[in-house]
Amino acid sequence: MSDVLSQLADVLEQRKQESPDSSYVASLYNKGLDTILKKIGEEATETVIAAKGGDKEQIIYEMADLWFHSMVLLADQGLHPDDILQELQRRFGLSGLEEKAQRTK
Amino acid sequence: MSDVLSQLADVLEQRKQESPDSSYVASLYNKGLDTILKKIGEEATETVIAAKGGDKEQIIYEMADLWFHSMVLLADQGLHPDDILQELQRRFGLSGLEEKAQRTK
Amino acid sequence: MSDVLSQLADVLEQRKQESPDSSYVASLYNKGLDTILKKIGEEATETVIAAKGGDKEQIIYEMADLWFHSMVLLADQGLHPDDILQELQRRFGLSGLEEKAQRTK
Amino acid sequence: MSDVLSQLADVLEQRKQESPDSSYVASLYNKGLDTILKKIGEEATETVIAAKGGDKEQIIYEMADLWFHSMVLLADQGLHPDDILQELQRRFGLSGLEEKAQRTK
Repeated sequence: MSDVLSQLADVLEQRKQESPDSSYVASLYNKGLDTILKKIGEEATETVIAAKGGDKEQIIYEMADLWFHSMVLLADQGLHPDDILQELQRRFGLSGLEEKAQRTK
Repeated sequence: MSDVLSQLADVLEQRKQESPDSSYVASLYNKGLDTILKKIGEEATETVIAAKGGDKEQIIYEMADLWFHSMVLLADQGLHPDDILQELQRRFGLSGLEEKAQRTK
Repeated sequence: MSDVLSQLADVLEQRKQESPDSSYVASLYNKGLDTILKKIGEEATETVIAAKGGDKEQIIYEMADLWFHSMVLLADQGLHPDDILQELQRRFGLSGLEEKAQRTK
Repeated sequence: MSDVLSQLADVLEQRKQESPDSSYVASLYNKGLDTILKKIGEEATETVIAAKGGDKEQIIYEMADLWFHSMVLLADQGLHPDDILQELQRRFGLSGLEEKAQRTK
């Protein structure tokens, strides 16, 4: 599963070249920051509602929406999911085993 | 960067054994679902505020908070970030082809 | 201005008799609690975005949306804006001139 | 109940003269717009959680929090609850006829 966020980031980057008429993501970029932020607020609320409803499939569905629109915001701002993962890694002292392995080569 | 979410999920799982007095995450589990959901609402709002403020470091910081508390919710509900990544993969037809290709080398 | 909330509560109550096809409010009741709550999350986010944008007309517009959908929730749950006003009055020790007038009788 | 919002607006205006150490509202003004907006996001989320929980007393409590912090935002921005009530009156064609009628008596 590990490359999904990077692959999705690539897709979101490619959509910057597409027409707002043909791509939902391109239409979000075109409408601008406020529209993207409204979606984040909406999807966070829908995640809360789903979790209170107790349906795990619904939680997965709504959280995928929340993470997806988070990634649209990152792309719109010239950021990458790795920026978030690095911040999480830093906070939690996560080891980055692959990096360590590379360094021992 | 690719294993950060899985490593963090492991950390969040371990915290289920710890005392609410000694671990912030354990205190969230202990306070229960509503407290975790309030954090998701808070962090989504803070992400919106940061993005409107235009400071990219602040966006990274707040979105890391949002993803982190999303993952606390997943752990609390017996879910895993891979559930979200699979949903995103399914939606976007992300192939995993690169991984397959690498394995055949 | 003082009777606006009560008048609006009356309107919202009347809409319970109308068809979801002919009335936006009736369509919200018909879609149910989750739809009404999603609107509250949306409008709160839009209020935040408007305030960060610094346009006072936009703040008024979005907060009116937030209060309106709050009142739809109250009506849906068999509650009345006076329930909220009484709670605020209680917290802040507001005088309740009408009550005073009654006490002097 | 009709004057509660105006009375509360007066209280919130008075708090602009007080010390952040002695008044919660003064501390919100002092911390600034972002802190007030975070509270609006928090209280909207808590209203959603309360409504999903089905406890009407809790809905009243959380919505009072939401309206209260909405009014702190209005005061901070030099606005008044009447601005919101006029917008609602305009949208719904609420007549103010009763008030007019009373004045002609």
